[in-house]
Amino acid sequence: MLVSPGLERLIQALNRFPGIGRKTARRLAWHLVSQDSSFALELADTIKSTVESFTTCKFCNMLAESDPCPFCASEDRSDELLCVVENTADIQIIEDMNDYRGRYFVLGNLLSPIDGLGPEQINSAFLLQRIESLDPDEVVLALKPSPEGEATIHFLSELLKNNGVKVTRLSTGIPFGGDLEYSSMLTLSNAWKRRYPV
Amino acid sequence: MLVSPGLERLIQALNRFPGIGRKTARRLAWHLVSQDSSFALELADTIKSTVESFTTCKFCNMLAESDPCPFCASEDRSDELLCVVENTADIQIIEDMNDYRGRYFVLGNLLSPIDGLGPEQINSAFLLQRIESLDPDEVVLALKPSPEGEATIHFLSELLKNNGVKVTRLSTGIPFGGDLEYSSMLTLSNAWKRRYPV
Repeated sequence: MLVSPGLERLIQALNRFPGIGRKTARRLAWHLVSQDSSFALELADTIKSTVESFTTCKFCNMLAESDPCPFCASEDRSDELLCVVENTADIQIIEDMNDYRGRYFVLGNLLSPIDGLGPEQINSAFLLQRIESLDPDEVVLALKPSPEGEATIHFLSELLKNNGVKVTRLSTGIPFGGDLEYSSMLTLSNAWKRRYPV
Repeated sequence: MLVSPGLERLIQALNRFPGIGRKTARRLAWHLVSQDSSFALELADTIKSTVESFTTCKFCNMLAESDPCPFCASEDRSDELLCVVENTADIQIIEDMNDYRGRYFVLGNLLSPIDGLGPEQINSAFLLQRIESLDPDEVVLALKPSPEGEATIHFLSELLKNNGVKVTRLSTGIPFGGDLEYSSMLTLSNAWKRRYPV
């Protein structure tokens, strides 16, 4: 017997998060109904109010609570560097590095023709426009070295070839603390090719 | 720079789920604001409506959408067996076994004096009352063999000693598919003591 048919809708809703399987969704749903209901009602309100307070920055495409976003609005950030990321969450990772003082641009997606993600879905025309108005010295493509990331890096570097701007990407190789033994052949042969004098 | 101070409240709310760490909470929060907002608003509504539709069964203490719950209300379930579980989610696990046709009782907690969880917090007086009115032949304590579970089993078996009802617990031992090598010493020595003729 299904103990609680009414919980099914909530389980399915939670199951739609990437990385949350059915078992975890079930555990979270039971937790929500087991606790003092103020926990769940507060969470529901926080989800609603947070989502409603977010908007997209008209300059860099990042999700922010203001438009323009704090990075585009700030006078303390340098126009010389433009860092291109896949999504807004990546910006926090780069900010945590505490080393970068330039501007950002959010693609929103990576190229993946098989999933119907072409140049339009990565906002490449919008990026070109932003580069023209900002006129940076260097565009850093801070994208992950996956097939989709590589395709996007290739596409954007071709697109910007005649633009005069310097286009760079993050270094690839064996991660610190990583083991040669546990590195993939792709990582290892790339690290071999990109070896540098000590 | 903190990319989004407004997301912090949502991250903290999600972080309050057991088993959801800060990193996962951050990922879920970004997912909520990144998607078409209907996803998040629907989730918020589903949480709210589900939690508000749940109540506690006055007979067995289970979380259900009706009071009495479907198990206590059903005429198809036998009164001869009463299965005692820690929480409502455990009932689904036992129902999935598709073998049990008796009644249930939900303790809500396990005994843990160090956490302030005593006889009252496990509803032991309520359980006694339920046993008196239901008059089952056997009470199955389907609790986990953890220190808290063992303490609860010990306490309840003492409590029911003079009640005339047969009190049983689930078998303990090496799980099917488990390895002797990877079993804890406690599990192994318990399995040794409880060995049975083949």
